[in-house]
Amino acid sequence: MAGFYQFYPNVVTLIGSRHGDKTNLMPAVWQTGVSKNPMVYVVSISQKRFTHGLIKASGVFSANFVDFKYVKTIARLGSCSGRDIDKIKEFGVELGQHKQLDVPIVKFAYASFECSVQEIIPSGDHDLFVGRIASVHEAGGIKDGSETIDCNAVRPLLYLGKDTYITVDTGSIVTIRR
Amino acid sequence: MAGFYQFYPNVVTLIGSRHGDKTNLMPAVWQTGVSKNPMVYVVSISQKRFTHGLIKASGVFSANFVDFKYVKTIARLGSCSGRDIDKIKEFGVELGQHKQLDVPIVKFAYASFECSVQEIIPSGDHDLFVGRIASVHEAGGIKDGSETIDCNAVRPLLYLGKDTYITVDTGSIVTIRR
Repeated sequence: MAGFYQFYPNVVTLIGSRHGDKTNLMPAVWQTGVSKNPMVYVVSISQKRFTHGLIKASGVFSANFVDFKYVKTIARLGSCSGRDIDKIKEFGVELGQHKQLDVPIVKFAYASFECSVQEIIPSGDHDLFVGRIASVHEAGGIKDGSETIDCNAVRPLLYLGKDTYITVDTGSIVTIRR
Repeated sequence: MAGFYQFYPNVVTLIGSRHGDKTNLMPAVWQTGVSKNPMVYVVSISQKRFTHGLIKASGVFSANFVDFKYVKTIARLGSCSGRDIDKIKEFGVELGQHKQLDVPIVKFAYASFECSVQEIIPSGDHDLFVGRIASVHEAGGIKDGSETIDCNAVRPLLYLGKDTYITVDTGSIVTIRR
């Protein structure tokens, strides 16, 4: 049946994982925040992915939010597996310092979450990783002072399906007070 | 701790629910597809919402995807509760015919999912409704023939937080083959 991708576009995040001497980054699109207090974030990851095993073993992961200008790097990070190559070295991704959990923090990201896995829920051809957000990183100047992202400062990277990406139209922004 | 809303923007969906003589629509942003085969979709809904009780009672819901041009209607639908008023009547929302599940299908939506609840997972201040997609509705001409949404035909409605909405920049579309 066609039509599943009607829920697109969704923001692309780089999911970071680390276990033993392996560190990996994987773009993921099937993700969202699900609770504000406590802060909970979920991401759906195929059992086939290298990242799946790393997170299952370590119990922690990062979610890194990136600007549209990095679209080529993100696409390349999604075109290969951490089983075969060390993506961090291969693509020269600089990592920053984590705060509370031992997870890779992508320096070029405008924001990152450090998450600890609360639950793994089988859901069809993927597993849903429910992560408690332990810590948040954010680059300076990305927020407009009212808790929303300033899309004139950063342009979130969105995925449309079939290797196609898009970003937001800052000219369309509208606020409708209740 | 600040920073939770860094995962925005996310698509706004109208979640449709029906139980007994009550039919309701609620905008929801904390949602994503999580499995393609079978098709599974999740949405996070506060226990406080009228919709929460209706879906819990009926075991089914719809997710309706809408164009940015309806932003005012969506904002108004989010500014009141189905406990107090019949939103369908109040806002003159036309409903279409459902296919397999008894859920409200929003006629002005460019796509709709009919979902049956597989599981309800408590996650912080919300519950995560895991829905098996039983049927998909789509308006003509919204896809470009390659399973992606044609953003020149419809402009998905995205939420940025704090009553602020945005849509996509069709000029930014880029395809990067692997």
